[in-house]
Amino acid sequence: MGKEITSRNEDYSQWYNDLILKAGLADYSAVRGCMVIKPYGYALWENMRDVLDKMFKDTGHVNAYFPLFVPKSLFEAEEKNAEGFAKECAVVTHYRLKTDPNNKSKLIVDPEAKLEEELVVRPTSEAIIWNTYKGWIQSYRDLPILINQWANVVRWEMRTRLFLRTAEFLWQEGHTAHATKDEAIAETKQMLEVYADFAETWMAMPVIKGIKTANERFAGAEDTYCIEALMQDGKALQAGTSHFLGQNFAKAFDVTFVNKENKSESVWATSWGVSTRLIGALVMAHSDDDGLILPPKLAPIQVVIVPIYKGEESKALIDAKANELVKELKTRGVKVKYDDSDNARPGWKFAEYEMKGVPVRIAIGTRDLENNVVEIARRDTKEKSTISFDGLTDHITQLLEDIQTNIFQKAMQFREENITAVDTWEEFNKVLDEKGGFISAHWDGSPETEDKIKEFTKATIRCIPLNQVAEEGKCILTGNPSQGRVLFARAY
Amino acid sequence: MGKEITSRNEDYSQWYNDLILKAGLADYSAVRGCMVIKPYGYALWENMRDVLDKMFKDTGHVNAYFPLFVPKSLFEAEEKNAEGFAKECAVVTHYRLKTDPNNKSKLIVDPEAKLEEELVVRPTSEAIIWNTYKGWIQSYRDLPILINQWANVVRWEMRTRLFLRTAEFLWQEGHTAHATKDEAIAETKQMLEVYADFAETWMAMPVIKGIKTANERFAGAEDTYCIEALMQDGKALQAGTSHFLGQNFAKAFDVTFVNKENKSESVWATSWGVSTRLIGALVMAHSDDDGLILPPKLAPIQVVIVPIYKGEESKALIDAKANELVKELKTRGVKVKYDDSDNARPGWKFAEYEMKGVPVRIAIGTRDLENNVVEIARRDTKEKSTISFDGLTDHITQLLEDIQTNIFQKAMQFREENITAVDTWEEFNKVLDEKGGFISAHWDGSPETEDKIKEFTKATIRCIPLNQVAEEGKCILTGNPSQGRVLFARAY
Repeated sequence: MGKEITSRNEDYSQWYNDLILKAGLADYSAVRGCMVIKPYGYALWENMRDVLDKMFKDTGHVNAYFPLFVPKSLFEAEEKNAEGFAKECAVVTHYRLKTDPNNKSKLIVDPEAKLEEELVVRPTSEAIIWNTYKGWIQSYRDLPILINQWANVVRWEMRTRLFLRTAEFLWQEGHTAHATKDEAIAETKQMLEVYADFAETWMAMPVIKGIKTANERFAGAEDTYCIEALMQDGKALQAGTSHFLGQNFAKAFDVTFVNKENKSESVWATSWGVSTRLIGALVMAHSDDDGLILPPKLAPIQVVIVPIYKGEESKALIDAKANELVKELKTRGVKVKYDDSDNARPGWKFAEYEMKGVPVRIAIGTRDLENNVVEIARRDTKEKSTISFDGLTDHITQLLEDIQTNIFQKAMQFREENITAVDTWEEFNKVLDEKGGFISAHWDGSPETEDKIKEFTKATIRCIPLNQVAEEGKCILTGNPSQGRVLFARAY
Repeated sequence: MGKEITSRNEDYSQWYNDLILKAGLADYSAVRGCMVIKPYGYALWENMRDVLDKMFKDTGHVNAYFPLFVPKSLFEAEEKNAEGFAKECAVVTHYRLKTDPNNKSKLIVDPEAKLEEELVVRPTSEAIIWNTYKGWIQSYRDLPILINQWANVVRWEMRTRLFLRTAEFLWQEGHTAHATKDEAIAETKQMLEVYADFAETWMAMPVIKGIKTANERFAGAEDTYCIEALMQDGKALQAGTSHFLGQNFAKAFDVTFVNKENKSESVWATSWGVSTRLIGALVMAHSDDDGLILPPKLAPIQVVIVPIYKGEESKALIDAKANELVKELKTRGVKVKYDDSDNARPGWKFAEYEMKGVPVRIAIGTRDLENNVVEIARRDTKEKSTISFDGLTDHITQLLEDIQTNIFQKAMQFREENITAVDTWEEFNKVLDEKGGFISAHWDGSPETEDKIKEFTKATIRCIPLNQVAEEGKCILTGNPSQGRVLFARAY
């Protein structure tokens, strides 16, 4: 087929890269650490974006757009945020190129076009947005502000991976302003629930909801809530974060409001985001050695129909039946493609759509027509069955739901089997190296201990689960007392 | 009302700025030449984007995403394109900030983090995209490629205006690759038609389709097709362009394909784009001294309902009726808002929704309820009428269509009245200064003449209309022979 990819067992990391490239999701680019999102990958992102956008709007948010550039003086205003991102900032210093006097076909940066103040390409937009909110907020009547932005951001990462970690990526960032602490915390939690719902219902990817430790918190946040997913190689992946920012940004940018009692107060803030990284998560959560496995609810193509024929006459008969089926499926809202292109044989097409993770494949041959049946193959289990044309659209819509449920349950079962409770340091290391997954263990609550554990094992605390049970125990590293278990893992 | 704006007669330019700010479409930002698109402005852009996106997909295009940054060596590869944009490029030269050793609360650009090769923030994406297409195209079977991108771009303009000319703006850029010249030209023309259709059918803004002269052509194009609109102050505005790029980019980036005859050829290219500038055009095409006038087909809110009541009991009765109406209108797909907020009086709300250009305003008072009627005010003509609740939704949907038609016809009539044919230089100057609008005149076809006319009058050739009639004449400036009239205007 010319489309084979490395197997997961052989080299998980290579499998992932092969898959992204061969399924046509993305490509490397000429720009260090940046990727090209190809049409098939972008169609997936559009589907994810549209669903999320609706969820944001249903919870009262509106979209807006803020500048790409952040003047350095604004960027540095919130110190922790600035410190957290300073090392990965792309910086614009000049605004003009000119012809190289030594080589007229080349351009050089015009030294006379140096900016008075450098501009940071946004790694995140709290600074530019809170500087803007300052002009929009005077009284409690101006609150809350519930704004989301779909945008590109740049973080100059040293090690990049397609979708998982790229210098530029696409994301959404919600930035809300509130009159009270309670309201801001409620917003932070609400958006965490939106993300968790999206991950589980749409991506079919089970997630654990929790709070980050101080070490892993967003730079500038009081609390970072997160959803954590488990990939097939036993590594965790942070899939979305929602930050309670307290009054940090309001104080840094002097954003106050007059409350109902006519007193001036600093505004309370949240921010929350998910990115194209979710595509990497989706790929790693479900796919196999033959290619992608996409959840029907997000798949750009849900059903593909491939004709198997010899000669024009045979094809004409299949065409008629297939077009009828396409029409019926479209009426039901199914995204269906009839691939009757003559540039590839059916076997090649089968492999291609397996690679692309199309949930349902229908083959129609001449004999099938005579018997009033089609052959249906489902991508997740690879099961094939012969189904009558009568009631076929009902069968397919049900099958799409079954596949959605099945891949979620499969991922959930894997996740449950890979949360291991351990009580000793020895056990911790053994499980980490031999099994992977989430390790539920006691920790003494100190950042230093967490740092040491990371240094020794490369595992980090993924989160303190929201459903943490109060339980007395001893820290796996120090033996100091602990009040409950947290989740460790090696992570992407 | 506290919301008054400068009148058009007094100062058209100030009227425009006041309107953008007071209608809540956009705001200035802390970044030179960049603006904040506020939620109401962004909702308008979302509506425009969604319609255009569907039109692009209906004509066979798919979306993708390419990097924000263009390495300088790629940027300079297509010489004319590079030369055309070099003077307005924001350039990233460093990838890290560090703490200022002299002031620990400040950051400085880390001189040790200088990029080996500078990165240009894309002013347009031909270079990065054609460098990518090189890897995607081998044979005629790989063609055509029909890709569009929704993205932000940066052009360091010296004089900026909200929406019309900003350093950063949002746009879409289509980039297609074809096996033949004819196919590329057909694509260029097709997209011009899509833009013209969008402008007239959705924006209610009549446009003239034409071809740019060599002076006004896109840098790197063989031909630039454009749509030109007329603003109320008699100035023209270029609303969209579609470029036939020939083989210029294919040759610059060495993109060849093997044709059906097994011979290697350079690929043919097009690119086409419209931007958030269209919002500026929309504002200037229709609005008046009381605020925006938005075409119903693009308005974020098509109908607003304002209750007029005294006391809770009265309000409860109106609420019931209004909610019923909201429900019925939503069923019909009408975007309706019931504004029963108690923080402003009805008169203030009326002015506010006039400022925001909501096409239809419905007022419901206690006495109206008794008479089973409402008061309807249409934004375009300011006419008010009393309409029975019976058949009200039919009336409103029809009214929205009437408003769409009316504002198009009004703009069309204005445009037609402001195309003036002149045959002498004296007349040309007189019309330009006293009347404005498009001037249809003979030109000798030379770039030098065009330059001189621009120097003398600030008028440029907006386009050679596609429907140009062959007509012998003499150039208004030089008296040299001409074969047909072109359209001049002062322009945004």
